[in-house]
Amino acid sequence: MTSPDSTSLAQAVFSPRSVALIGASGDEAKNTSRPHRYLRKYGYPGAVYPINPGRAEIFGDRAYPELAAVPGEVDHAFIMVPARSVKAALAQCVAKGVRVVTIYSDGFAETGPEGRREQAELAAIARAGGVRLIGPNCIGLYSAQTRLALSVNAVLEEADIRPGPLSLVSQSGSMIGGLLSRGLARGAGFAKLVSVGNEADMGVGELAGMLVDDPHTGVILLFMETIRDAEHLARAGRRAHAAGKPVIAYKLGRSEAGQDLAASHTGAMAGSDELADTFFKAHGILRVDMLETLFELPALVAGQKPRARHRVSVLTTTGGGAACVVDRMGTLGIEVVPPTGRVIENLARKNVRIGPARVTDLTLAGARREIYEAVLNELLASGHCELVLAVAGSSAQFRPEATVGPVLEADRRDKVLASFLGPHAERALELLAQAGVAAFRTPESCADAVRAWRDWRAPLDAPAAERTRLDAAATLVRAPGAAQLTEYEACRVFGELGIAPAPSVVMKEAGETANLAFPVVAKIVSPDILHKTEARAVRLGIRSREELAAAREEILANARAYRRDARIEGVLVQRMEKGLAEVILGFKRDPQVGPVVVLGAGGVLAEIYKDFASRLAPVAVEEALRMVDEVKGLAVIRGYRGMPRGDTDALARAVAAFSQLAYLEPAVREAEVNPLIVKAEGEGVVAVDGLLVLESALDQASRIARPG
Amino acid sequence: MTSPDSTSLAQAVFSPRSVALIGASGDEAKNTSRPHRYLRKYGYPGAVYPINPGRAEIFGDRAYPELAAVPGEVDHAFIMVPARSVKAALAQCVAKGVRVVTIYSDGFAETGPEGRREQAELAAIARAGGVRLIGPNCIGLYSAQTRLALSVNAVLEEADIRPGPLSLVSQSGSMIGGLLSRGLARGAGFAKLVSVGNEADMGVGELAGMLVDDPHTGVILLFMETIRDAEHLARAGRRAHAAGKPVIAYKLGRSEAGQDLAASHTGAMAGSDELADTFFKAHGILRVDMLETLFELPALVAGQKPRARHRVSVLTTTGGGAACVVDRMGTLGIEVVPPTGRVIENLARKNVRIGPARVTDLTLAGARREIYEAVLNELLASGHCELVLAVAGSSAQFRPEATVGPVLEADRRDKVLASFLGPHAERALELLAQAGVAAFRTPESCADAVRAWRDWRAPLDAPAAERTRLDAAATLVRAPGAAQLTEYEACRVFGELGIAPAPSVVMKEAGETANLAFPVVAKIVSPDILHKTEARAVRLGIRSREELAAAREEILANARAYRRDARIEGVLVQRMEKGLAEVILGFKRDPQVGPVVVLGAGGVLAEIYKDFASRLAPVAVEEALRMVDEVKGLAVIRGYRGMPRGDTDALARAVAAFSQLAYLEPAVREAEVNPLIVKAEGEGVVAVDGLLVLESALDQASRIARPG
Repeated sequence: MTSPDSTSLAQAVFSPRSVALIGASGDEAKNTSRPHRYLRKYGYPGAVYPINPGRAEIFGDRAYPELAAVPGEVDHAFIMVPARSVKAALAQCVAKGVRVVTIYSDGFAETGPEGRREQAELAAIARAGGVRLIGPNCIGLYSAQTRLALSVNAVLEEADIRPGPLSLVSQSGSMIGGLLSRGLARGAGFAKLVSVGNEADMGVGELAGMLVDDPHTGVILLFMETIRDAEHLARAGRRAHAAGKPVIAYKLGRSEAGQDLAASHTGAMAGSDELADTFFKAHGILRVDMLETLFELPALVAGQKPRARHRVSVLTTTGGGAACVVDRMGTLGIEVVPPTGRVIENLARKNVRIGPARVTDLTLAGARREIYEAVLNELLASGHCELVLAVAGSSAQFRPEATVGPVLEADRRDKVLASFLGPHAERALELLAQAGVAAFRTPESCADAVRAWRDWRAPLDAPAAERTRLDAAATLVRAPGAAQLTEYEACRVFGELGIAPAPSVVMKEAGETANLAFPVVAKIVSPDILHKTEARAVRLGIRSREELAAAREEILANARAYRRDARIEGVLVQRMEKGLAEVILGFKRDPQVGPVVVLGAGGVLAEIYKDFASRLAPVAVEEALRMVDEVKGLAVIRGYRGMPRGDTDALARAVAAFSQLAYLEPAVREAEVNPLIVKAEGEGVVAVDGLLVLESALDQASRIARPG
Repeated sequence: MTSPDSTSLAQAVFSPRSVALIGASGDEAKNTSRPHRYLRKYGYPGAVYPINPGRAEIFGDRAYPELAAVPGEVDHAFIMVPARSVKAALAQCVAKGVRVVTIYSDGFAETGPEGRREQAELAAIARAGGVRLIGPNCIGLYSAQTRLALSVNAVLEEADIRPGPLSLVSQSGSMIGGLLSRGLARGAGFAKLVSVGNEADMGVGELAGMLVDDPHTGVILLFMETIRDAEHLARAGRRAHAAGKPVIAYKLGRSEAGQDLAASHTGAMAGSDELADTFFKAHGILRVDMLETLFELPALVAGQKPRARHRVSVLTTTGGGAACVVDRMGTLGIEVVPPTGRVIENLARKNVRIGPARVTDLTLAGARREIYEAVLNELLASGHCELVLAVAGSSAQFRPEATVGPVLEADRRDKVLASFLGPHAERALELLAQAGVAAFRTPESCADAVRAWRDWRAPLDAPAAERTRLDAAATLVRAPGAAQLTEYEACRVFGELGIAPAPSVVMKEAGETANLAFPVVAKIVSPDILHKTEARAVRLGIRSREELAAAREEILANARAYRRDARIEGVLVQRMEKGLAEVILGFKRDPQVGPVVVLGAGGVLAEIYKDFASRLAPVAVEEALRMVDEVKGLAVIRGYRGMPRGDTDALARAVAAFSQLAYLEPAVREAEVNPLIVKAEGEGVVAVDGLLVLESALDQASRIARPG
């Protein structure tokens, strides 16, 4: 999986033999003095070349007026000069043959259009010169094993960074210190910290990919505001899964306010957070909702792989304490299971009596270590659950060793073991952290972690292209040569992909007969009239030839009145379809995550309730069935309250067929079937109206493909 | 407000002159030895009488074989004997004239029906004997100022309880230690802690009411699993509001699993958590979602009253840190406002440049104390926001004094001031806690606290009874003498309250003419057929006299076939009504919170999406308008996407009118208008179908009234 090229890139990033500090200062009060001082402080063994035209020596090292004057090779340069001088500094790096350049300087994409242009120039210079970039507007990186503290992060001045298996890639530079301190306070240790800034070249995904190959990294943490290099990140997720290294993301931008902020920090593009979620799930990346969970989840999933079932067993000595977590887990739909009869019997044979309640509350008896131990080990040994949550009460505060002892010493078998402490009990948490047991200080973070574990799936493989169908569809798309197809044309394309359109005929001349049973619907066909209802160019419930003739005249007149120069191709006559439910099927290329397919309940209410399920496209039928299950409003065709069942299988097949649009060439920008009518079980689905817009050349330049 | 009687009760609870410990042990290893040891340890100044027939002396105090042998008066007795002996011990307390009895013993309502019966007997004995009870199944109480540690709580053995303004009432005994430790770790101090157990007599509400009058209590915290004494709690909320003491509730039972657990702990009845929320809001009680918020919110609201507006201004030195909170607040709908032009100008005059972005990110400049100080004070002085959130970065960890100094010294004016720290920064949190500034360690708890503050309202006063209307309605209710009214009767009752029913006539004989314009609807009228559609006894869209006559015959035949012995009062003929939306209007007496009125969008989708707004009944028109705004699906009549507006004013008036059912005698158990049709603006609403069920005598015995 690892190419020699990427290895040497990773070496230049994290294990450079030499670094140049462009714009280094000898004034300790200045940020630009920090990388030099930190490299010395952390014992970086390579060569350090400070570049500063005004100084002959800085902190005991010879300083150079310019990069060209440096005698040896430079693997990694760190640029700290003002924005206006960055381009020249980068050009020097190209000339010198530097492999990687990290740019601390800000004043680029985060400032607006002009900054974006400047940043694009930097990327172009680097690309042309064979140099890779980190930043700009980043604070640098830290690697424990190679003692590389190539950063202006103030936290490196004072923090005592325990080495360990966590590596963090962050789009926020100013939060790295905060995150580090939070992790260290939880007993975690760190291998690498990287600030990626505006990601002009290398982004979160590419750096995460390097961490997959880093032998010191066991869990990869991502602090994100947006997704900028989806293809790299997707590959990193898949490779991390194969390597057994969990990737855990905390991503902002769940609200409009959060998206605003991301844009102002690093020039991030606003994107749908729901689609980011879809993306993470598709590529095996765990996502946490709470900041604390980012540091509490690793112990729960380190060395684990996603599981097929997610039943949770809970034992406690504090009913109220367990209730805090169980109630929260309940709101997240986590399944908490009672002990089986066999567990109860096995314990009874050891003279330990527990009840059949959902939560095993040992109350005061649980304060006796042998009781707690017996129950915990019996639950861990039983096949009725995949995760055991051990809750402890006040004794965890005053007798930490005795209280968490059974948890530390438990034979975990193949179970996931987690612990929640009712009290503020720092020593008990420390003991658990040292033993690598996931320990939670708040019920909410505990529930969030279990939820993330429950939602964790192995990366989803994209289904293969259905070539025959796609080829047939492609012929129809090419034919009109227009960016936007008419409803009739779009539905024919979808038909080739496998979605039955409502029987329909285009009447070109007055007096033509449509060979359809009444009632029918009539609509204008014009590439220039997209909003047919607004143009009053649709008639429903036409019951006879006479009504149809009248409707045709009226539609044509209204269409001409609506837009005098509209090209009119005729009037579409369509059988009026009835079913049990109407759904919307959508396809688009999202600027963050690439092609996606969306299924929603139809009608205005579903829109108001934002009731949609989405997946990266294309999607297989099996996964499409899960989408059908996720749309709440589709309960009406899933047998809700004895209502007749709809053809959910046919619907799932239609979703999968529609999602093949991701493979179609010429490429589709967006498409919609609205509505798709779902008939009774076994009677299929039928497309009644549709839309298909092709990509422009501009779109294609920024297209995101889907790995895997 | 405070009666002399309640004062002396509170004295007996928290400041008894003497206590008896029934079932006291001299064996330090036993829980039953704890109250005695704790009373001595904490320096309780009153008389302590251990009752133990096998000992003459315990821990240096004379022990008595039975309560009757105690020479002096006993204000408060603590019962620790096994469940089977509690009744006898309580009888002794009655005989001795003990004022308050706290029962530690378990084995009552939490064990099932038999335990519930035993518990009811205890309550009856106490009531008859003029004794008040706390518990059973509680662990006792603690009062700092009176040094009363009348509890078996293990935490009192080792904890060092800082005195302070927080008082806690908890339905979970085993979590009191955990909660105490969490509060203490946040720098909070405690006045009183009470475990209420099964609440056979005194409950959370009555004890909270005592705390309103306690001069040492500034903020009242509630840890709840259910609401058992709604009337008391409502009064406590109102009195606390008047006294300027915030009441903050953390309540479990948000999920089914959580409700199960509550039932198994203390025999709690499952109740709707949404209605508990409605109840808290109506009575000025703040509710937190997260456990940590329970201890972090007090500093935000202590000494405050609810406000009319809730605009939040944010300043930060870490963009990523602020984004964590702002994004979370965004998902909760909290309004974060940018600085005004005036703020920007005022600062510019002091040579401090800030931008117009939503969050004022000072980045590195903010590390200079005078800059942070200037901006913070300018925001506090400006009228464009009600809350200022000061976010600090890594420096809070390494230079806590300097970093939080500006926050500690800020002139808060009339603003609410809160602080979130990006890093793990214990010392900075300590400094903020000491200064009484609300300080948050997680973005989620910070957002939860601001949300709770935003949702805080002054207690809502119930509107007066509309006597004339109610009297007219009462006549109709009494007339039939049945527990359940027919649709026609129910709609007439609602009509008297002010909700127009669809014009309708009951046809008793064949050939009768209904003086209504067609189309009409026809339905069976029978007190024995409640599910008219199921009985196929409804016909819609009848367009002529002939169709009506045929429909009548068919309906009668189907009704008789459905239920041979049904009493049939005729066929209801009703004008077929059309409108812009259908809603459901519901009224019921909830076992936890009393009478409530519920408004929901109509149809199966609204049911699936659980789209309802509820209030305690009765409700005023102004508040009913807010309910109309809360129902998402009603966007369709609020001008969503240019759709025509419905008569939301008439709808609100209908909700308010319907909610007057809370005052009707004979009392209504439940009632529904389904659907109520909302017409275009100015055209009103009309009730098309309805239901009204009267309370039984049994219902009335357990009825909850609404104070205020």
